[in-house]
Amino acid sequence: MSLVEDLERYRLLLDEALCQATAHYATGVESLKDAMAYAVEGGKRLRGATVLAVAEDLGCGVQEALGPALAVEMVHAYSLVHDDLPCMDDDEFRRGKPSCHKRYGEAVALLAGDALLTEAFEVMATYGALPLDRRTLCVRTLAHAAGPGGMVAGQVIDLALEGRKLGPDAVTLMYSLKTGALFGAAAKLGALAANAREDVQKAAESWGKSFGLAFQIVDDIDDLKQGGKELVKDTLVKESSLDHAIALARSTLDESLAALGPFGGKGRFLRELSLNYLDKIK
Amino acid sequence: MSLVEDLERYRLLLDEALCQATAHYATGVESLKDAMAYAVEGGKRLRGATVLAVAEDLGCGVQEALGPALAVEMVHAYSLVHDDLPCMDDDEFRRGKPSCHKRYGEAVALLAGDALLTEAFEVMATYGALPLDRRTLCVRTLAHAAGPGGMVAGQVIDLALEGRKLGPDAVTLMYSLKTGALFGAAAKLGALAANAREDVQKAAESWGKSFGLAFQIVDDIDDLKQGGKELVKDTLVKESSLDHAIALARSTLDESLAALGPFGGKGRFLRELSLNYLDKIK
Repeated sequence: MSLVEDLERYRLLLDEALCQATAHYATGVESLKDAMAYAVEGGKRLRGATVLAVAEDLGCGVQEALGPALAVEMVHAYSLVHDDLPCMDDDEFRRGKPSCHKRYGEAVALLAGDALLTEAFEVMATYGALPLDRRTLCVRTLAHAAGPGGMVAGQVIDLALEGRKLGPDAVTLMYSLKTGALFGAAAKLGALAANAREDVQKAAESWGKSFGLAFQIVDDIDDLKQGGKELVKDTLVKESSLDHAIALARSTLDESLAALGPFGGKGRFLRELSLNYLDKIK
Repeated sequence: MSLVEDLERYRLLLDEALCQATAHYATGVESLKDAMAYAVEGGKRLRGATVLAVAEDLGCGVQEALGPALAVEMVHAYSLVHDDLPCMDDDEFRRGKPSCHKRYGEAVALLAGDALLTEAFEVMATYGALPLDRRTLCVRTLAHAAGPGGMVAGQVIDLALEGRKLGPDAVTLMYSLKTGALFGAAAKLGALAANAREDVQKAAESWGKSFGLAFQIVDDIDDLKQGGKELVKDTLVKESSLDHAIALARSTLDESLAALGPFGGKGRFLRELSLNYLDKIK
């Protein structure tokens, strides 16, 4: 199957499972349930697909890896909801529709984000058939990547950069924490679900950290081409140059490919995804 | 040892461990680390003490139960930070000092809350020496109580009540979700840490749900006596009467005592805490 077909298959699976999980866990209060469902709706599911693809590549069924995959998508969705709030980026649109607080009000959006973050851990601890001890390793991985040593730290650096020129290194660190950490966790969660050897888990995480950083830089470059957010936001292109950004994206994607050594002949999806992104900046 | 002495011992232990954990997990970004430390500072630690006391009463060392106890306090602290934000209760003071967003700004306070919630799960999955499988059960318990089927649902009902008279039943449900659920989880976490029988775990949770509800009602009554928040906030006293509130607190505390049957001769701390609260409304 091609990369595009794989991505579409994973996306459909995740869309349906996210819809069911949100309805199952968020009982009782309608506005909260609606806001949570609205917030998870419509993503590309690249992070969740990474979990499923790594697990499948390593011989684990997608059903087994679905809990961690849903959790990663919930964490990603919560981060977007909070990121869009007026006290943060104050974005009115997200995923082609009004952002969560525009639709449900600031308070409910804040709480829907909190609920998605909490539910991510509940889902990982309860959904599907993974053994209990391995679930704890999944919780460690996701919490570490999403918390104050990972994604949230990246958000704080993002705030600190606003209106100040701190240079390309600070932007790169911010991208690594904000985006790289969660992709690293996603790939490692797939390896954990498949009960892979420790060196394979580390290789998966390492691929994800590099790919996530490159993903964010390519996003910048795309925005520049479309004349979008780089005008107002701190991006690597703005802090250095287009050439520098392209060179860094390329070397980071090369690193992601090099990290896959311990996968041996496996890891097709990760390899193809890196090559696909290299292609985008050719 | 008396209840007061126990509470003081647990408080000191939790204060120190919270301080260390925040410094350990939140590396790199100073403003985030400071805001997290500020947010956990100064509580009474009643929820964390409940975890430790149940564990000790059931023959488990406090060190073993410290991970879940820290996690419960972090979840409680995050909920206060987000609750105080301008789009929620807009409170300028908390625990006798400026609220987190007054001190660090809205964006950093929002992110410090997110970080504390995430770190709670990391701590529970990594801190101390509990077996991995039992940690997953702890994550389930806390996530369920704190998420969209528990505390967050209570917050949304609280918002919905604002400026509308929905009657005492809605307020009681809101209290059960907002406060009862987390006390229920705290007591159950202590039993889980001690690897107690399932009926004892359930009894602990049941005690916590009743005690938490009563705790919130007694808080109302105290506020009324001091001429405080009941003037502006929806409280049970406002939705019914002082007599009704006192009667409900009393019967709920009686229920909490009755729930302790499966503890046999154990559960001294929980019993004394319920009796102490019965005494407050005599």
